[in-house]
Amino acid sequence: MDDMIGIGGGREAALQAAQNVRAEIRAGRWTDRTTGMARGMVQGNLVILPAEHAEDFRVFCENNPKPCPLIAMTKPGDPSTPNLGEDIDLRTDLSCYRVFENGTASEEVNDISHYWRDDMVGFVLGCSYSFEEALMQDGLTIRHIENGTKAYVYKTNVPTTPSGPFSGPTIVSMRPFTPPDAIRAIEITSRFPDVHGAPIHFGDPSMIGIDNIAEPYSGPPPEMREGEVPVFWACGVTPQAVLEEARVPFAITHKPGHMLVTDRLNAEFSTA
Amino acid sequence: MDDMIGIGGGREAALQAAQNVRAEIRAGRWTDRTTGMARGMVQGNLVILPAEHAEDFRVFCENNPKPCPLIAMTKPGDPSTPNLGEDIDLRTDLSCYRVFENGTASEEVNDISHYWRDDMVGFVLGCSYSFEEALMQDGLTIRHIENGTKAYVYKTNVPTTPSGPFSGPTIVSMRPFTPPDAIRAIEITSRFPDVHGAPIHFGDPSMIGIDNIAEPYSGPPPEMREGEVPVFWACGVTPQAVLEEARVPFAITHKPGHMLVTDRLNAEFSTA
Repeated sequence: MDDMIGIGGGREAALQAAQNVRAEIRAGRWTDRTTGMARGMVQGNLVILPAEHAEDFRVFCENNPKPCPLIAMTKPGDPSTPNLGEDIDLRTDLSCYRVFENGTASEEVNDISHYWRDDMVGFVLGCSYSFEEALMQDGLTIRHIENGTKAYVYKTNVPTTPSGPFSGPTIVSMRPFTPPDAIRAIEITSRFPDVHGAPIHFGDPSMIGIDNIAEPYSGPPPEMREGEVPVFWACGVTPQAVLEEARVPFAITHKPGHMLVTDRLNAEFSTA
Repeated sequence: MDDMIGIGGGREAALQAAQNVRAEIRAGRWTDRTTGMARGMVQGNLVILPAEHAEDFRVFCENNPKPCPLIAMTKPGDPSTPNLGEDIDLRTDLSCYRVFENGTASEEVNDISHYWRDDMVGFVLGCSYSFEEALMQDGLTIRHIENGTKAYVYKTNVPTTPSGPFSGPTIVSMRPFTPPDAIRAIEITSRFPDVHGAPIHFGDPSMIGIDNIAEPYSGPPPEMREGEVPVFWACGVTPQAVLEEARVPFAITHKPGHMLVTDRLNAEFSTA
């Protein structure tokens, strides 16, 4: 496992760990979540669509950079993303995929080679793992990581800006912080526009259409401590909800938590 | 008046306006506040102390960069600050000064030439006017400016880090914002560490020892609108409160709102 995490070895060890993770996944030996693996390296959300919907989705990402920060887009039929890693093959390099038919997740598979077609276009979107690492390096504690649970994810009433068939509400992840820590978290995440950037809201959840903070859309009920306020970031789950709503005939995404591990350092994505 | 504001003329007009403001002040023709003058140029808070207290105060600023962001310190007896403007003379270039004896403001004067001594050391500290300009350029509305009043200023229970005789609570200025605007304001002000930087608190005022938001330490009762939260920035009034507490035998400051207008652009103070 250690050679898939890359702790303490600096840049070279982190890059080697990313390549080890992808090799293990490609060989079918790792089918679990990639959370906490190849520390220091960017992980990405994946959306694959037929070319006929690609331009609309590209514009959707451009319109909605906070939930959908586009960091790579492939040519039709080409499963490689050389800017994220020389040898990346989007058909085999994620540990679990979701196949959508008419907006419904119909299957979960570990390899999509037999679904791939000459007209498929892959989109890789930045992921909150990158900014969570930056927050922890600054000494902030992230509650769901501290508690060893999935993230607290909510559906809001904040609309995305539509493009073609793609529209729907913004999905957010929530992290509780005291106000001084929230300010620090806003400062830090604002330096990472390619991995969701600054939060979209803090405080009263009802202002963004969340009726009950104790009932997330996904993840466990959050643990909120005295003096803490909820802070909400746009979340990479948004495109999956949008695909469901758009009911496009065919699409593939990663399964949440089962991300594309890239050869790019999180630090490269900081504007500071 | 227009040649003291420098609107619409870009960098050169702003610089010329700053020099016009100082010339008018030096000639005794302008004794009022400098709020809104020489737009685009940094204005500064002033503290003058005898050399025996200068090192302690320098360290106090270093310890407390949010309330006391030091942008210039003179040599003993030298009233110039060439890094802020070639011809600046701290004895004549502010429109109103406060003279403190044993921690009490004993006098307000428009020229301190006859108080100046060979052992005087001047400190110029960044001022919120710089970040307020950046906030407004981003489209945010600042309530006390919209309402044409003084800023809402509060005494907190957040202690400064002491140095020698200098200690006391942090003074803050408050601006109400909706959460999305507050997030934007935090993003923007975090890029201006030399002019107070990011806020120190938002939300519940009692968490920083403010019992009643309707009763500021200075300024009028604030207008808070529905859905807004108070956002608190460390304030350049802090050193004046600290001087009162320290009861040093002799000190001079600017009168609040009557700032040193410099030849440096606000934009130069952005880290972005």
